[in-house]
Amino acid sequence: MMTEKDTEVFNIGKCEINSTLDIPQFIPEGERVILDIEYKRIADAFQKEGKALSLENAGPRKKIFFDPHKTKAAIVTCGGLCPGLNNVIKSLVNQLHNYGVKTIYGIPYGYEGLVSSYNHEFIELNPNNVRDIHTKGGTILGSSRGKQDPLEMLDTLVKNDISVLFTIGGDGTLRGQLTIFEEIKKRGLKIATVGVPKTIDNDIRFVDKTFGFETAVSFATMTLQGAHAEATGARNGIGLVKVMGRDSGFIAAYASLASNVVDYVLIPEVDFQLDGERGLLNRLHQTLQKNKHAVILVAEGAGQKFFEDKKEFDASGNIKYGDIGLFLKDKITTYFKEINFHTNLKYIDPSYVIRSMPASPDDAVFCIMLAQNAVHGAMAGKTGVLVGRWNSYFTFIPIKLAIEKRKTIDPKGYLWSIVKEATAQPDLF
Amino acid sequence: MMTEKDTEVFNIGKCEINSTLDIPQFIPEGERVILDIEYKRIADAFQKEGKALSLENAGPRKKIFFDPHKTKAAIVTCGGLCPGLNNVIKSLVNQLHNYGVKTIYGIPYGYEGLVSSYNHEFIELNPNNVRDIHTKGGTILGSSRGKQDPLEMLDTLVKNDISVLFTIGGDGTLRGQLTIFEEIKKRGLKIATVGVPKTIDNDIRFVDKTFGFETAVSFATMTLQGAHAEATGARNGIGLVKVMGRDSGFIAAYASLASNVVDYVLIPEVDFQLDGERGLLNRLHQTLQKNKHAVILVAEGAGQKFFEDKKEFDASGNIKYGDIGLFLKDKITTYFKEINFHTNLKYIDPSYVIRSMPASPDDAVFCIMLAQNAVHGAMAGKTGVLVGRWNSYFTFIPIKLAIEKRKTIDPKGYLWSIVKEATAQPDLF
Amino acid sequence: MMTEKDTEVFNIGKCEINSTLDIPQFIPEGERVILDIEYKRIADAFQKEGKALSLENAGPRKKIFFDPHKTKAAIVTCGGLCPGLNNVIKSLVNQLHNYGVKTIYGIPYGYEGLVSSYNHEFIELNPNNVRDIHTKGGTILGSSRGKQDPLEMLDTLVKNDISVLFTIGGDGTLRGQLTIFEEIKKRGLKIATVGVPKTIDNDIRFVDKTFGFETAVSFATMTLQGAHAEATGARNGIGLVKVMGRDSGFIAAYASLASNVVDYVLIPEVDFQLDGERGLLNRLHQTLQKNKHAVILVAEGAGQKFFEDKKEFDASGNIKYGDIGLFLKDKITTYFKEINFHTNLKYIDPSYVIRSMPASPDDAVFCIMLAQNAVHGAMAGKTGVLVGRWNSYFTFIPIKLAIEKRKTIDPKGYLWSIVKEATAQPDLF
Amino acid sequence: MMTEKDTEVFNIGKCEINSTLDIPQFIPEGERVILDIEYKRIADAFQKEGKALSLENAGPRKKIFFDPHKTKAAIVTCGGLCPGLNNVIKSLVNQLHNYGVKTIYGIPYGYEGLVSSYNHEFIELNPNNVRDIHTKGGTILGSSRGKQDPLEMLDTLVKNDISVLFTIGGDGTLRGQLTIFEEIKKRGLKIATVGVPKTIDNDIRFVDKTFGFETAVSFATMTLQGAHAEATGARNGIGLVKVMGRDSGFIAAYASLASNVVDYVLIPEVDFQLDGERGLLNRLHQTLQKNKHAVILVAEGAGQKFFEDKKEFDASGNIKYGDIGLFLKDKITTYFKEINFHTNLKYIDPSYVIRSMPASPDDAVFCIMLAQNAVHGAMAGKTGVLVGRWNSYFTFIPIKLAIEKRKTIDPKGYLWSIVKEATAQPDLF
Repeated sequence: MMTEKDTEVFNIGKCEINSTLDIPQFIPEGERVILDIEYKRIADAFQKEGKALSLENAGPRKKIFFDPHKTKAAIVTCGGLCPGLNNVIKSLVNQLHNYGVKTIYGIPYGYEGLVSSYNHEFIELNPNNVRDIHTKGGTILGSSRGKQDPLEMLDTLVKNDISVLFTIGGDGTLRGQLTIFEEIKKRGLKIATVGVPKTIDNDIRFVDKTFGFETAVSFATMTLQGAHAEATGARNGIGLVKVMGRDSGFIAAYASLASNVVDYVLIPEVDFQLDGERGLLNRLHQTLQKNKHAVILVAEGAGQKFFEDKKEFDASGNIKYGDIGLFLKDKITTYFKEINFHTNLKYIDPSYVIRSMPASPDDAVFCIMLAQNAVHGAMAGKTGVLVGRWNSYFTFIPIKLAIEKRKTIDPKGYLWSIVKEATAQPDLF
Repeated sequence: MMTEKDTEVFNIGKCEINSTLDIPQFIPEGERVILDIEYKRIADAFQKEGKALSLENAGPRKKIFFDPHKTKAAIVTCGGLCPGLNNVIKSLVNQLHNYGVKTIYGIPYGYEGLVSSYNHEFIELNPNNVRDIHTKGGTILGSSRGKQDPLEMLDTLVKNDISVLFTIGGDGTLRGQLTIFEEIKKRGLKIATVGVPKTIDNDIRFVDKTFGFETAVSFATMTLQGAHAEATGARNGIGLVKVMGRDSGFIAAYASLASNVVDYVLIPEVDFQLDGERGLLNRLHQTLQKNKHAVILVAEGAGQKFFEDKKEFDASGNIKYGDIGLFLKDKITTYFKEINFHTNLKYIDPSYVIRSMPASPDDAVFCIMLAQNAVHGAMAGKTGVLVGRWNSYFTFIPIKLAIEKRKTIDPKGYLWSIVKEATAQPDLF
Repeated sequence: MMTEKDTEVFNIGKCEINSTLDIPQFIPEGERVILDIEYKRIADAFQKEGKALSLENAGPRKKIFFDPHKTKAAIVTCGGLCPGLNNVIKSLVNQLHNYGVKTIYGIPYGYEGLVSSYNHEFIELNPNNVRDIHTKGGTILGSSRGKQDPLEMLDTLVKNDISVLFTIGGDGTLRGQLTIFEEIKKRGLKIATVGVPKTIDNDIRFVDKTFGFETAVSFATMTLQGAHAEATGARNGIGLVKVMGRDSGFIAAYASLASNVVDYVLIPEVDFQLDGERGLLNRLHQTLQKNKHAVILVAEGAGQKFFEDKKEFDASGNIKYGDIGLFLKDKITTYFKEINFHTNLKYIDPSYVIRSMPASPDDAVFCIMLAQNAVHGAMAGKTGVLVGRWNSYFTFIPIKLAIEKRKTIDPKGYLWSIVKEATAQPDLF
Repeated sequence: MMTEKDTEVFNIGKCEINSTLDIPQFIPEGERVILDIEYKRIADAFQKEGKALSLENAGPRKKIFFDPHKTKAAIVTCGGLCPGLNNVIKSLVNQLHNYGVKTIYGIPYGYEGLVSSYNHEFIELNPNNVRDIHTKGGTILGSSRGKQDPLEMLDTLVKNDISVLFTIGGDGTLRGQLTIFEEIKKRGLKIATVGVPKTIDNDIRFVDKTFGFETAVSFATMTLQGAHAEATGARNGIGLVKVMGRDSGFIAAYASLASNVVDYVLIPEVDFQLDGERGLLNRLHQTLQKNKHAVILVAEGAGQKFFEDKKEFDASGNIKYGDIGLFLKDKITTYFKEINFHTNLKYIDPSYVIRSMPASPDDAVFCIMLAQNAVHGAMAGKTGVLVGRWNSYFTFIPIKLAIEKRKTIDPKGYLWSIVKEATAQPDLF
């Protein structure tokens, strides 16, 4: 059971320095926003306990902890690409500059760059050399996967006199950051670590949406239109598209709604069978008999039960998922060959093209806001946190709380019900 | 002072019919979401009054008011174009069809289509003839501006046995709907009117964002990049761009952030002077001397004080705004001619191109959700309401409450402060 | 050695009917354009032989062969998708309609649709039901691969009283058309067959460019930018992209020029080694050591020598090419693993997304022109021909001449030399 | 009457230096391509005169005139923006670098930058600082309109020891270049001037297409789709779009074909009346009565006869064209008001947005080829020429020949006839 304590943000120390920002409004220290906004539950909580769960409101503080002129900051991007990485980097640099921070290091190639044995040299960042980077996909800092020794990374921070570290990365990265944070706390160091969660899957708990998600949906939608053209362009044509979504099917759900051409959406949150009357293969057969074409959209994490016996792990220690796209391609092709039913399947996996696109304008603005709040938090000495948006407010969330579990699609909730309605897809189990 | 009563949604009558929708979860009648989510204010309210303000949660009801099989529905689009109109029409039709409503009329050319003297014929809509309309900008129904006699419109509804009317339009449309609604109430008719607010400016109160806004920002951003190329391509080049925004500068604010090329953003909410040391003209002169180019982005409603003496009204009774774009173009050109300073101004007004674009994928999904909830509301007998999203929940809002005042940018709030920071723009008054 | 005879277009019979088109200028029967436009060679030819090789100029004739009002036409699309298929269909229909042809059949699913045992029903086409198809990718008629019996197809034409057949397809389709044409000639039937060559690879001899090519290059370029982001985003990142190009590397060449991010371009026309000092693997190693990232673009037909021992054939009888993309991915990964050099390869194959896109505006106009000239030719009784553009004139080319060999990139010519220059790529053999 | 002499390219002197380029094939000095490719006319010419008109083939020469290591080059961009300017600049720099030229000056703000009294400082260009400029619209060098004193400009070249000048500009620029060239010839200086013609209108004689044209058509097409949405979205809606095209209506013609939504296309080459039965206003009335909406596309140079009595001139000495867009807007609105016929006109002028866009991939490749050939020409001592593409060959054309008259649309030719057919537009005079 979640408690108030879980939502508490750790501050390094007392904020006694006047903010160097020249702005009309600061956010009062301790301002919070309600976590659950459904009225009856709030009312109940207040009635019973006189209080309800909430998150700390982000934004600029009047008093800050770090003296900007003496502070060195560092930025690191980890894991796979995601639209908006460069936008976040740029805005971090600009906002640090606005505070008056002079030294900002870009850490090359993810956490590797913080491990001295890799011999990667820091990149000095300033508003000039990041001016145009937001127009490009990828990350100018480079990235890498895989765990690195937190102690070694911390040593590098200390050796380089870095007191503020921004990590932009996913689950693994945040776990790494958490370990560093705990070690910092143990040693009583005055180093703040603030995360900007990067997950194209949009699966962070207590975070409405993550940057890059919308850009990903746009491009996935375009891909689906292509798959639909392929499917209708052949007798019993099948367009099979795999998109990102390890634990959560948000990209698949949104893209199927936006494109309006999908017959079957398979996501990690909803079980499906291949065989049997209600299974995908038989259903697909019916669809083809009726429409002469079909489009299937599968999130990469769907149907992992089919790979139970052959689990592998990647460099970051994540389970290596079985390739459900190729698996389905194979199963579908075999099935129809066996029942001697002519089909024409085209398999499309646009993941790398999607990941590496520049951010859409909406994502671009969102990245600015995330990055600015990350800087506000760090300068005020918040640490061990990530910055997110929740119910339209930017908030600081303890990493521990955020990574405890994933945000997923509720199979009985509104989003999945409209996907099912839009696709006219029956249960497949 | 706003009270609970203001947020109460009027129901035509008791919902006694079982919903015809086959979905796993219905929203309990009366479920609400908190209006203000800042923790201290909520806590205070509960402590002092034992309650706080909230809005009715939208979504499907288990019991509905109208018998779908006997219900005729109508859809009307009014006012200027906005990306997403066809998406909303399509989803209304599909969702009505899901409920089992057989007769769905498209009203041609806005409110005109409800006035018999115009002799416009209704268009019968069904899932087949709206299948592909979401890929196109504009509205397949046509639109019009201008007030029509509410009594005459109501007569048309009655004569055609229409018991559910969906209006998609802006401020004027909602006011028209309100009058119809009040007349219906007076006469005790069983007709529901539900609005889907259409304002590219994103200026509806208690509504996080309106459909089309994001698409508009995307295109405005692209235009700004062009204006920047024009400005840097000439000695003392000035790119002057006017975008939509009668009372609220949201498009201007977001596009300036997304593009990162704007020097001055002028919005209705923030005053500015032309003359004097702190005035735009002098500041612009300084910018040109420093950078040799400048980009100015002006929302159409900015600087209306300069037209105080020549107010006109359009067909809908809205004040016709002075053309601040042409005004500035003229003022700037004259000023620099007078001080004999060579400049090269390019004026760009992309409004009509923006308005008529198809919806972006994100807007497309949003339109589906808005339309579905509008249908849920209408079928449950909610009337005199509009459907919106507030803090990530879809809600029903009494029209009266929503149109009382506009949502605007707070000149002291976060959005404007980051715009000022991103543009490095000083106060111009 | 090519002779005048090879370029002669076969006419079914004398053109004695006045054209029903109302246009200011007709192309005189027999007007031709020079084939080779290099001056000295032309001068030589005229000096020595009093003549030079030329192609028949397309365009509308004043006298036509078929009486439009009695003529039934048919359109068939074969083989893989290509941007612009629907544009060509639409323009064929519109132009036939302009001539006064009332009955226009769409043949479903390629040549299958002309074989009665498949039981595909013809689709009646008219300007109304093709109005909006040009905005979509794919083909509304459907397509298929694979040989069908020409005699059976001819029987279907005869049985349905079709006297004009338009085929839109690639090499295999044109060969099929040629057989039908020869059988028609043998039997003395009055049926014209005119081809609109469809090859996204742009590899038709005596044809400057084919429709869809430019759209393909645009999207391939965008993909390369993504691959570049992936490559620079990882330590020793390698972006490997495979694009269409079975026998000709035009898409690869143009996309590498347009994107300006490619280090190695591999095309069917230019040999390369994997091993040895000058081989790709060693060169790639050097590039990575120098730049820390590399992008490789490979046309699907490149490096087929590596698959010599395992040739397969597809349904159309084309050699099934070995998957050079996956092959390279494997070889590169293994190589660097063996020499213990960390790399990070991302493999991207955007083919299906590219093929299924709608035509770019430039391709859209080109499709109109091709289709109109195809109709002009057919109505004038030209048969056994395809329509193409050569040196900016539209021409009729005997199919036999066109399919004799492919248009390819000259490894010593201008295009390849600028690709090599732009990529700074050394010879790899 | 044009003669061989008119097509002769002036060479500064004998080419005695070995090319520093390492490429497999050079173009033999004096190679030419036939000008007119229609067979009978060529045959006639050879029969009667033993020769025909031709243009000099561009491409790299084995022997060049300038010693790259001692040569300083300069690049200037003049007049209005056009997509592709930065691509041309980049490729000029890269190719000069390939030859071994070390000093490359960017001249700021057009011809102004060559006049010392403006005090603009040259920008040193090299492959590094132009690496990414091709992704942006506009020109990094800046531009200006207006005549400058050729003698003064020549002085600047001489003073700075510049022996190769590349001008990228339109008609006025080429005339300026011609004067400089003639003065150079008179003084016997060893300075080459080579032009890359920049006209978004695509109106250069003996040049198939100019860079930026295709990008312009793409965007104009998108604008037309918006205008169509506006027109259909209102009762008797009229979408009126003005595009570039001072003397030639190519953009208008192509965009109307690509979009397929235009009812009337007005271009400079084809007269039209407003009044009378056959005039635009009456025709438009008929269209609205029939379809309830209409789209008009007007090239800026159309209908200039309506402004005969008020001619003005711009800074470059070009006639300032009357604004036919606003003129038509006014005339149409007034006409329908007078006959008391409700209409709703939306006027869209996307010119500045179009001009400032980045080049499409196809244009990007084309810019590379133009720029490379410009450098080949200059290094070989060709001067007083521009580089163009004619019948798919790149050629050098004496400026004098090229600017003698404009390339325009033949009102009786193929292009205009298909536009009329596609729009179903009758003669308006």
